[in-house]
Amino acid sequence: MRKTSIKDVAKKADVSIAAVSQILNNKGQRFSKHTIEKVLQVRDDLGYVPNSAARNLKGTHNRLIGIIVPSFRMPFFADIIQSMQDNAPTDVNLVFLGSTDDNLQNAIYSLVERGAQALIFGKPIPNRAEVNEFLKKRHIPYLVLDQNADINAQDMVQTNEFTGGSLVASHLLSLGHRKIALILPNKLTDNMRQRRAGFLDTLSTANLSPTTIITATLSKHGGLASVHQLIQSKSTAAFVLNDEMAIGVLRGLAYQNINVPADMSIVGYDDTDYAEFMIPTLTTVMQPVLEIGKAALNMILRRLDHPNLPFQTAFFDVKLIVRESTGPVK
Amino acid sequence: MRKTSIKDVAKKADVSIAAVSQILNNKGQRFSKHTIEKVLQVRDDLGYVPNSAARNLKGTHNRLIGIIVPSFRMPFFADIIQSMQDNAPTDVNLVFLGSTDDNLQNAIYSLVERGAQALIFGKPIPNRAEVNEFLKKRHIPYLVLDQNADINAQDMVQTNEFTGGSLVASHLLSLGHRKIALILPNKLTDNMRQRRAGFLDTLSTANLSPTTIITATLSKHGGLASVHQLIQSKSTAAFVLNDEMAIGVLRGLAYQNINVPADMSIVGYDDTDYAEFMIPTLTTVMQPVLEIGKAALNMILRRLDHPNLPFQTAFFDVKLIVRESTGPVK
Repeated sequence: MRKTSIKDVAKKADVSIAAVSQILNNKGQRFSKHTIEKVLQVRDDLGYVPNSAARNLKGTHNRLIGIIVPSFRMPFFADIIQSMQDNAPTDVNLVFLGSTDDNLQNAIYSLVERGAQALIFGKPIPNRAEVNEFLKKRHIPYLVLDQNADINAQDMVQTNEFTGGSLVASHLLSLGHRKIALILPNKLTDNMRQRRAGFLDTLSTANLSPTTIITATLSKHGGLASVHQLIQSKSTAAFVLNDEMAIGVLRGLAYQNINVPADMSIVGYDDTDYAEFMIPTLTTVMQPVLEIGKAALNMILRRLDHPNLPFQTAFFDVKLIVRESTGPVK
Repeated sequence: MRKTSIKDVAKKADVSIAAVSQILNNKGQRFSKHTIEKVLQVRDDLGYVPNSAARNLKGTHNRLIGIIVPSFRMPFFADIIQSMQDNAPTDVNLVFLGSTDDNLQNAIYSLVERGAQALIFGKPIPNRAEVNEFLKKRHIPYLVLDQNADINAQDMVQTNEFTGGSLVASHLLSLGHRKIALILPNKLTDNMRQRRAGFLDTLSTANLSPTTIITATLSKHGGLASVHQLIQSKSTAAFVLNDEMAIGVLRGLAYQNINVPADMSIVGYDDTDYAEFMIPTLTTVMQPVLEIGKAALNMILRRLDHPNLPFQTAFFDVKLIVRESTGPVK
């Protein structure tokens, strides 16, 4: 079966090839509504699909942005994705890829091959130098989200993680807590390290350090599993480095009939959309997720329009949201 | 800047064009490890990206499957996505697209243009006939997930929604409840209609119908907003058509100091990964989400290998998971 060509469309619609090309690339303003509709109709009748690669070279294509996230199951990324989706201009197509470290390079290669003109990374990049070189060679700009340590990225969106951790410590100290546990995911990303650093720094101003540091998998189950050790530590409060884990901690404490906040105060981080629905509602640190998604997308689009722009960065502030899960020490 | 061609790669690696082609398409088993590595190295050095469209026509490309979901924020879809991602063969690339009804056709068109060879729809398709024709003309098979009414899809994965609704009603009746409310999203998909039908059918065997039927947006906030009307109905139990809404209902009841399950039993649907972490844990109906994702992916890959296969369908059973949120009527 021969593939339908632009010539076939032009012939059947009785217009020039240039006209078809302009109309299909949304540059057909000079044509009558009748002509435009006829061309679109013929395109659909014949099932014409433009050659993507060729169109990319001419730069007339809808822009394709690839976004790579560590997991679709983490509400933080789900929120960012949704915000990009809701804010994408009509001539921009977004595709999302979940990727483990193992197949990240393959995922990147595949996206570029499909015509992705820019990438947004929502996860740490292993083999940074290699990936950076691969993309540089192909003139594919990329932006790194929520990371603080990729010096090769042209553009970056960050939140003030150090302040976030610090706000948590101040809040617990102000409630009179002195025995404070720290619950961490067993793999820390750069931004999480800053979060931890801010927390420890502020604790140390009160000459304190955590009663215990517990590590567990970054999941609700991980949080649940850390409860035994938390109880043994005799702490009166815990900072759990993210909301997903904090939800598991709340559930585990309820199983042990430990009342939050009367017996133990719990603070999460992220303010995912579940935080305000927990029983008790979860005190946490809000990152402006919707703003972050929007800023990242706008920044990378600007980069595509102006490849030689200097390094762009957006830096967002965070906010402590005090809810029911924290209270004064007994 | 001239685009690097396969000729450039062959010349620099000092092998034939055919050899480069075979090696880059994972069909280079007959070549020495040394040759293979040299070609891959040169490809990376020169930044060679194969012409996607041309490769598609020859059928040598990694297969690209596009998956379109209504929202990345619904845990049900996040789980399905993750299961597909975890189970995809290495020569299959998955891309995910979120889409509103407004831009669904545009999203489909874009995916096909990028070389998607098959599609999986996780949401109802508006303009079914039109979409079906568009895809048929281009020989793009598609599979519909979690929907019961698309007679044009070649393949389909379904769960026994009628039974699911029925199990909920039986459970509440067996606990002695006679005043049972039904809380629905204000837009029902076909599968949700079947869920509702099973529930109403089993209630009617006890000569009952819901004390009240409340509709709200499909979200935790929607569930929260329905609590006032639920309390006014003097019901002793409620079936909430999905877990997200049920989480909102639990939270709303807690604000009103109504104890679940002592004063009111609540049942959700989906068994998302939050259900077992709620306080109280949520009684719900489990759809085997991971199996569903896996089955859908395998089915569409089989369809690509054998386009003339007869209609394929997988039908999954559901299971009632009884947890803390339901108990005997007072």
